[in-house]
Amino acid sequence: MPHPLFEKHRALLGEAQAAIARRTHWSPYAENPRAYGETALDDGAMAFEAYRDAQFYLDQPGVQGRGGEEFSPYGLPLNVSYPRCSPDALIGAARAAMLPWVRAGIEARSGVCLEILARLNAGSAEMAHALMHTTGQSLGFAFLTGGPQAQSRGLEALAWAHREMTLIPEQAEWQRSEHQRLEKRFMVAPLGVALIIGSATQPTWNAYPALFASLATGNPVIVKPHPTAILPLAIAVAVARQVLKEAGFDANLVTLLVGDPDGPVARDVALKPDIRLIDYAGAPDFGNWLRDAARQARLFVETGGVNCVLVDSTYDYKALLKNLVLSLCLDSGQLRATPRAIFVSREGVQTPDGLIEAGQFGRDLAFALGKFVEEPARAVEVLGAIQSPATLARIDAASELGEASAEVLRFSMPLVHPKWPEARVRTPLLLLASADQRDIYMEERFGPIATVVITATSAESLALAETTMREKGALNFLVHSTHPHVRQLAEDVALRVGVALSFDLTGAALVNQPSGFADFHASGANPAASCGMIDAAFVANRFYFSQIQQHYLPPSSIDWVVDL
Amino acid sequence: MPHPLFEKHRALLGEAQAAIARRTHWSPYAENPRAYGETALDDGAMAFEAYRDAQFYLDQPGVQGRGGEEFSPYGLPLNVSYPRCSPDALIGAARAAMLPWVRAGIEARSGVCLEILARLNAGSAEMAHALMHTTGQSLGFAFLTGGPQAQSRGLEALAWAHREMTLIPEQAEWQRSEHQRLEKRFMVAPLGVALIIGSATQPTWNAYPALFASLATGNPVIVKPHPTAILPLAIAVAVARQVLKEAGFDANLVTLLVGDPDGPVARDVALKPDIRLIDYAGAPDFGNWLRDAARQARLFVETGGVNCVLVDSTYDYKALLKNLVLSLCLDSGQLRATPRAIFVSREGVQTPDGLIEAGQFGRDLAFALGKFVEEPARAVEVLGAIQSPATLARIDAASELGEASAEVLRFSMPLVHPKWPEARVRTPLLLLASADQRDIYMEERFGPIATVVITATSAESLALAETTMREKGALNFLVHSTHPHVRQLAEDVALRVGVALSFDLTGAALVNQPSGFADFHASGANPAASCGMIDAAFVANRFYFSQIQQHYLPPSSIDWVVDL
Repeated sequence: MPHPLFEKHRALLGEAQAAIARRTHWSPYAENPRAYGETALDDGAMAFEAYRDAQFYLDQPGVQGRGGEEFSPYGLPLNVSYPRCSPDALIGAARAAMLPWVRAGIEARSGVCLEILARLNAGSAEMAHALMHTTGQSLGFAFLTGGPQAQSRGLEALAWAHREMTLIPEQAEWQRSEHQRLEKRFMVAPLGVALIIGSATQPTWNAYPALFASLATGNPVIVKPHPTAILPLAIAVAVARQVLKEAGFDANLVTLLVGDPDGPVARDVALKPDIRLIDYAGAPDFGNWLRDAARQARLFVETGGVNCVLVDSTYDYKALLKNLVLSLCLDSGQLRATPRAIFVSREGVQTPDGLIEAGQFGRDLAFALGKFVEEPARAVEVLGAIQSPATLARIDAASELGEASAEVLRFSMPLVHPKWPEARVRTPLLLLASADQRDIYMEERFGPIATVVITATSAESLALAETTMREKGALNFLVHSTHPHVRQLAEDVALRVGVALSFDLTGAALVNQPSGFADFHASGANPAASCGMIDAAFVANRFYFSQIQQHYLPPSSIDWVVDL
Repeated sequence: MPHPLFEKHRALLGEAQAAIARRTHWSPYAENPRAYGETALDDGAMAFEAYRDAQFYLDQPGVQGRGGEEFSPYGLPLNVSYPRCSPDALIGAARAAMLPWVRAGIEARSGVCLEILARLNAGSAEMAHALMHTTGQSLGFAFLTGGPQAQSRGLEALAWAHREMTLIPEQAEWQRSEHQRLEKRFMVAPLGVALIIGSATQPTWNAYPALFASLATGNPVIVKPHPTAILPLAIAVAVARQVLKEAGFDANLVTLLVGDPDGPVARDVALKPDIRLIDYAGAPDFGNWLRDAARQARLFVETGGVNCVLVDSTYDYKALLKNLVLSLCLDSGQLRATPRAIFVSREGVQTPDGLIEAGQFGRDLAFALGKFVEEPARAVEVLGAIQSPATLARIDAASELGEASAEVLRFSMPLVHPKWPEARVRTPLLLLASADQRDIYMEERFGPIATVVITATSAESLALAETTMREKGALNFLVHSTHPHVRQLAEDVALRVGVALSFDLTGAALVNQPSGFADFHASGANPAASCGMIDAAFVANRFYFSQIQQHYLPPSSIDWVVDL
């Protein structure tokens, strides 16, 4: 008998499965805040305020104290405290909850996941404020990417998982001869307990695919948020627990692990033998540590890299500049998909209006950046605020490096947010380097920092972009070229390196805004990520088909072995 | 336009895809040698003889000399020499061959793979002799498992790969608004160069799934056979290269890497940065080394473990003994799926004829083993020969250990092969240990060695089996019980540990003969293997969807950014 929650949402799941196989534009959850009510964002602000200066309620086991010291990049102390639970208690509770969840079957688990998504969707406005005041995203960007688009990614992972789980029948009669007749039963079985290590800049967008892929395939999930961005994932965990409870399941299938400020909890937990799946999106140092140390678990790690841009020639120079400025400014470069190195050759950029010399291109890009940020009220809606003081320090260090050994095309400058005077807002830093200054551009400087790299030829640009992306990793490669041979070579580079390739982006289609159900956000083929997102492997690595077989009848078929 | 080889074989591929989703018995390739001609096995013997005392022809690049010193476990020097090629030359050639193979598309690659399988199938009898005289398998077992059943596994992997590759369309038009309109193209792209490290005991059965999964998804494959079992994989590589050439592709998409006797070639090659996939089936020490050292590659490692048997109660005691004897004797325990530890409690085995005391069960099993091997002509067809002198040493060491600290229920004894007097044939060694003698039974002793473990209760048997399989790994768990509660607890154990569970096997259905298109041979959830075999993850981890997108028109949609 189908589970009622599955019945309730099965049409949406069907549409989602059609969408992953079609890859046209599809937004399962409304992306306009007004679709959630005329006053949705204001109501969300009130809901967010209610969390502040209070204890966040979670009835989890093994509470050892309370923790949480979030402070908004917009200048607001959150003062929310969360229960700090013993990791072993959470793991024990997760394991205890697992078998009934597994035995409940695919439809029950999928139905519960779909209901969690529906509740998260209803709370999108509240989540937007929680995200804004932890990640520094602008409210609009937080709503869009951390609300409906993050939910969409969760649904996408669920749709893949459902597809991969349902190919195999629940049982089969296997007969080779009259003496070899077996009844086989198959069940989707989880790897074990899943750990999600939350991102500081896109907590929900990064966590939801992992959460729903793991949960749907039977794995209990422990969510360990980044210490600076606990609230969004605490809200999501609370929603998941509520739905699980209502559906008659053990709420400890999804728990929140808040770190001990005195100890590196994430590192300890990541090495526990019972943790069999780990999802992490964030800085490469921790990602590399996971790859070295957490050998008992399957890893789904995204650490970004140096996304490259090649500017060879264009049909529309101004549109190119505008699009690039927007990509560089979006969320102050605090997206792993933001362009970092922009290659242009001394042969210049061919445009319908003539050749633009390489240095001129750099100045034009700096000028366009300046024009964009000269209206703060408009600019902050795209830039948001700087999530971490470490990013501010990174901007300063890159400025000094640029001044000392390269050239600064445009310095990063503070911008006063019209509404949040304490907000950490900075305009992007744009450097100019030569092809041999690899220490300048062959490193991901997370934040609003990009480098224009002057090469001898577009062929050298391609070669350097390939080396950079192969060694440092990359999620995408943006190429502006009107020349078929350059485009062909760029395709070869993309195939060899394993990056998504975009040609000639102009207008509002940004290279760092991957679209759910259409785009693959990572390939797993270069150091930027250990897996593709979202594809079959992303979900299929989280479960196996458990098999139980039983012989039909006591046969006398092998009396030839020996007559006892 | 469909590729002619795809057209030729597409019906078979369709049947295979239906079979993986149905999981009833299906043998795509005839399992009776006579189906290949009345004199097929004799013809195969002649073909095998033609390889002996000769140079094996392979037109590969980077030849540095010749190597190969295979010696049949049946007492025959093979004296075949193979070209020894520089690993870097093979990797370079593989990378050079890759892009045209990728661009050829899914149907061309699948068609070529299907044709290779058809040619391998036609050569099954020749392969049987090559396998017999390298692995020690009996001719009948070599033909069945190394011929049609190995090919069947290759086809199964190909069917999964084809399913996973074809969900995504080749192109899609994506439109979010009139200003965001993109044409997206998708292509299956490989991770890189794949390395298969061949098994000494089941080279084709273990290699074919990897070979066809990797090749079909676009990865060039380097096959590094075990030094004692080169010929079977050399034949397979030669067949693959011939088909590739005939179809107009670069033969270096599949190459043979024969080790330098003076150096550990496998270890060197496994660490090359361009090797992105490694398949290995064999001993745990090398498998564990791979997991520690080969961090640049995705690993598909099967190392076996301690498969457990629980004997609690039965409807047919003699049938139980016969089935178990056959499983223990099959290929002299040189299968990773062979039962190793047989738990029986001091409460005895309940049978329709009364209670069998635990010690009596041990003696009955030893007696049944003795009865089976007392007719050598019959026994050698099941036992085959011992592949490696190391296994003989392992039998002797286990005998000594048993005599010193436990009890030997039946010693291993040489058996004279009626046709091959020099063959290394040994009867199985059966030990008896108590529950606390973990050093006796909690270790995989690869070869014809098994231990009956006496416990206090079936509950203790279940607990010890769970600990053993969780810590040491296991591919399967065989339970004889007429009690519903024991069966339920066994199912819980199987789910927690991740092993295939079989109840009450009697007759010719052996726990160590997994059936293609029906059984999952490994789960990836315990130390016996790092992946499930064969499932979606096994193939989906070998490729990603490469994406190329292009903007439609130069839009003026973001003039709000800045009017340049």
